[in-house]
Amino acid sequence: MKLRFRPLEYKNHSIVIIDQTSLPGRLKTVRIRSVDRLCLAIRRLEIRGAPLLGIAGAYGLVLGLSHCHSGPFDRIYRTFKRLREQIGSTRPTAVNLFNALDRMEKTLLDNNEKSLEQIGKTLLREACAIHREDLDLSQRIGLAGSRLIRENDVILTHCNAGGLATAGLGTALAVLFTAKTQGKRFSVFVDETRPLLQGSRLTLWELLRYGINATLICDSMAAWAIRKKKVNKIIVGADRIVRNRDAANKIGTYGLAVLARYHRIPFYIAAPSTTFDTRLKSGDDIPIEERSAEEVVRCGGKKTAPDRARVFNPAFDVVPARLISGFITEFGVLTPPFGRSFKKFL
Amino acid sequence: MKLRFRPLEYKNHSIVIIDQTSLPGRLKTVRIRSVDRLCLAIRRLEIRGAPLLGIAGAYGLVLGLSHCHSGPFDRIYRTFKRLREQIGSTRPTAVNLFNALDRMEKTLLDNNEKSLEQIGKTLLREACAIHREDLDLSQRIGLAGSRLIRENDVILTHCNAGGLATAGLGTALAVLFTAKTQGKRFSVFVDETRPLLQGSRLTLWELLRYGINATLICDSMAAWAIRKKKVNKIIVGADRIVRNRDAANKIGTYGLAVLARYHRIPFYIAAPSTTFDTRLKSGDDIPIEERSAEEVVRCGGKKTAPDRARVFNPAFDVVPARLISGFITEFGVLTPPFGRSFKKFL
Repeated sequence: MKLRFRPLEYKNHSIVIIDQTSLPGRLKTVRIRSVDRLCLAIRRLEIRGAPLLGIAGAYGLVLGLSHCHSGPFDRIYRTFKRLREQIGSTRPTAVNLFNALDRMEKTLLDNNEKSLEQIGKTLLREACAIHREDLDLSQRIGLAGSRLIRENDVILTHCNAGGLATAGLGTALAVLFTAKTQGKRFSVFVDETRPLLQGSRLTLWELLRYGINATLICDSMAAWAIRKKKVNKIIVGADRIVRNRDAANKIGTYGLAVLARYHRIPFYIAAPSTTFDTRLKSGDDIPIEERSAEEVVRCGGKKTAPDRARVFNPAFDVVPARLISGFITEFGVLTPPFGRSFKKFL
Repeated sequence: MKLRFRPLEYKNHSIVIIDQTSLPGRLKTVRIRSVDRLCLAIRRLEIRGAPLLGIAGAYGLVLGLSHCHSGPFDRIYRTFKRLREQIGSTRPTAVNLFNALDRMEKTLLDNNEKSLEQIGKTLLREACAIHREDLDLSQRIGLAGSRLIRENDVILTHCNAGGLATAGLGTALAVLFTAKTQGKRFSVFVDETRPLLQGSRLTLWELLRYGINATLICDSMAAWAIRKKKVNKIIVGADRIVRNRDAANKIGTYGLAVLARYHRIPFYIAAPSTTFDTRLKSGDDIPIEERSAEEVVRCGGKKTAPDRARVFNPAFDVVPARLISGFITEFGVLTPPFGRSFKKFL
């Protein structure tokens, strides 16, 4: 499927990203030439989305090493580990970043005989492979998930699991884009996703670009939309899925899974294998990022809460496995009983 | 209990309100001298809250008739009906407004022999009675509900069912204020309540004024707060409760009731008898106001959605009776089996 935009490209020794904080007002690109600037972009959410963070992290290592002076492998490796630490400390919840950094480290160690220049080229090839593979993963996820979409479905999604969260097609939204190109007719409700409004700013922007029938709601309207607008499926992305099949995703996802169960509609997680963390056993082990109170006490830049307001601002929550109807992956849709398909997948 | 602010007063032939759209930044009062301005204030949510709308509507009729010329009762009654129609058309969901207008009309008809001046005085007395009674109702609700509050409770509330929604003490928040004066220690999570943020702007402001331990969350964080912060009670207000005990309240309430059921915590509605509508049989009959898309596509005045965004913006939803653990009323807490207590109450 033809991409309508490219959220990230590596060109001329720099990472060129769409600044997602400027959307939907402006489609602005930012050229990133240093790891410091990359880390800032990640923290500010100029780039975000679990798979895209993996890609950005991989290119970030290439970028960082390109500024390093030649020397013995030990010194290169020390620099690499420092860069890895710096990039890895930006956001704790999405595992794709750590999986990509792991893969880059393995590539580095496999090439410890080479010169810095050769190592740089090898690492760039690996980062490009991660990038290319992610696009392929999202296409396969889109195809697998599109089989779940029926004529006249009414689908609810949350946050942005779209092209802006990946190499360009998305996870949950890849399913919708693919179903759309297959000529299926369906409509989508989009949670605005407070506090940072990735739903209204990014998902709606993407869905309109692909000509999909989409309606914006506030997060608190999801239950009523399910009941009154006959939402019959919920599809979201994920930031980390662990061994017992618990899944972390944008705050609000857990509540949606409860609503799906109560209303007896299926709740799907769309995610590539790069979002799986085989080291952690249960969702309780997933580190949940808590972000600044400022994100909640302000709305569109305007102060909307009293000065002394105390705030709880978790950026993610965890959906327990029992509330998940299926995982839409590059290997197809995994549904209960999971046992074998899930183990094979891991 | 001493009021910390007065959301509405009738003084010198005008209604003086706290402009709730200016909170929490500024505590600004607005003097309303005409029914047109009152209707605008209601539509803009400068005043809001089911019980407060009843009081405002009653004073509005007094204000409107005070500008009318003397004449036969028929003419006075025609004017009254036009004013009633105008005020009643501002917001359709909260029933307190209609209940108050009914009561004023009955008073008018009971005094059809009097002069316009005498009628004006009688109606003002009636409006003052509605106002005074509402304060009394909220005190009784506070006292009744405070018995439900235990040491170290963690309570979640949504929107603003506080002093700003009534004559001055609130419904759901009256329960908290009363429990606080009884020396009970508890904490409160406050849903910000998109799109108009009555939770962060108004409820948090009130809770801080009364020295209550309160934490602000986005609406989508409620499920996670229940699970991780051990929320053990949800208490909200209502805009209309009908014969089968379904209750309309601010959009998002229905989802909270589902979350309460899933997590096996009680879900209470605090409301005076003036919020009951004995004419309607079921929640399906309650008219649900849909408000402008502008409220959702903007956040703090800033455009946050693409230009062509379609929006679903219901201002209320309906909680089915089966999800309601009890009604906190001026006659005590009504709990299942409702049969007798509820009928007696109606």
